[in-house]
Amino acid sequence: MSRIGTRLATMGLDLPPPLSPPRDMVLPFPWVNIRGDRAFVSGHSAQTMDGKLAGPFGQLGGAVTVDQGYEAARLTGLAILGNLARELGDLDRITGWGRVFGMVNSAPGFTDQPAVINGFSDLVLEVFGPEIGRHARSAVGMAALPAGFCVEIEAEVLIRV
Amino acid sequence: MSRIGTRLATMGLDLPPPLSPPRDMVLPFPWVNIRGDRAFVSGHSAQTMDGKLAGPFGQLGGAVTVDQGYEAARLTGLAILGNLARELGDLDRITGWGRVFGMVNSAPGFTDQPAVINGFSDLVLEVFGPEIGRHARSAVGMAALPAGFCVEIEAEVLIRV
Amino acid sequence: MSRIGTRLATMGLDLPPPLSPPRDMVLPFPWVNIRGDRAFVSGHSAQTMDGKLAGPFGQLGGAVTVDQGYEAARLTGLAILGNLARELGDLDRITGWGRVFGMVNSAPGFTDQPAVINGFSDLVLEVFGPEIGRHARSAVGMAALPAGFCVEIEAEVLIRV
Repeated sequence: MSRIGTRLATMGLDLPPPLSPPRDMVLPFPWVNIRGDRAFVSGHSAQTMDGKLAGPFGQLGGAVTVDQGYEAARLTGLAILGNLARELGDLDRITGWGRVFGMVNSAPGFTDQPAVINGFSDLVLEVFGPEIGRHARSAVGMAALPAGFCVEIEAEVLIRV
Repeated sequence: MSRIGTRLATMGLDLPPPLSPPRDMVLPFPWVNIRGDRAFVSGHSAQTMDGKLAGPFGQLGGAVTVDQGYEAARLTGLAILGNLARELGDLDRITGWGRVFGMVNSAPGFTDQPAVINGFSDLVLEVFGPEIGRHARSAVGMAALPAGFCVEIEAEVLIRV
Repeated sequence: MSRIGTRLATMGLDLPPPLSPPRDMVLPFPWVNIRGDRAFVSGHSAQTMDGKLAGPFGQLGGAVTVDQGYEAARLTGLAILGNLARELGDLDRITGWGRVFGMVNSAPGFTDQPAVINGFSDLVLEVFGPEIGRHARSAVGMAALPAGFCVEIEAEVLIRV
């Protein structure tokens, strides 16, 4: 078993299947786009283990709490790992995380975006460790997100070809 | 004639000239910044065929409809192709689209950003086909955009040096 | 002394120390993440010369003026140069700026994001000149930013390994 696969098993983590988007959401792009030694990761949101969009929906600073946002960011990370695993075959091919762009659906005046996106960063660091998992990051407040996601994250990772 | 040039002609598509920005908008950066085999594409918006900012201005979920937003995203794509063609000499030098970041000027509660940015993705896929045109994508809601654009898109493409 | 170090001295510019974030802001990521010949720059904001968050806080189109935003974008640039200098050892290792993503905390209806982010672009061009300093850019309006920053900027630069 691969190193990262073993690590996920040790942590008791399962990765969700590909998203079955709502019927009216047409998404003409891959979740992970590999070009050479780069994997561009499309904007993901939290998923349930049966491939649906996971709630809660709405805004931080509104109906969604920081704890719920943190958990949504963590679930977003698991959805990204699921798509990376399917696209790469083996998560051990990831040689380093590059950039993480964390988007938080934010009501006016909400300023705690970093605490929300930490749900994602903490997961990546737990799974990949400090060297491969190290990533540049922004965590910022969006006016709105598709379907009312509370969190959306895009990223780039470097891979072994 | 180049393969992509022929394709654009077959599709009946003309590319707009460089933007003549409004007098009070100072933009000290290139529309396309080439570094090695990467072309970084600055945030573009829709243009008219005489190099002006095209409307409509305002927000999705406000004065601008999804159909208008889709068309603005498509025009944004043509503006980007125009600048890429001028910078690269030949659009055939594009070996693959990497990442597309689609920004939709969004009133509170608007959640249909993907349907808007599909105007861009559909164009790229029609022109470049599924292999070269394949791109990672986010489509998200901004609080405001310069001059009130309803759509702004930045991207990265990989090129033959 | 290095070329860029000399240039900064000639311009009378000092670079701030690393940020001491507010006690309740946990940031589990580096300000600059180097992978091969790429330096991914995390989202930065304006800093004081003693490593604190610099004001003003709030939104453009609200309490913060365009002139204040321009100055915040310039200070954000100095914070980024400080972290790049510490991470790279020498700013002369920067072979070219790639992409700059300029985020402006924007009240509804504010549309002058480019004039704000010009505080950053003007600094980069003054320090690095038109060839190395050349960058692709977006300047867009966010609903909210951490701690109420009025400006946040992320970027990618290419470096000599």
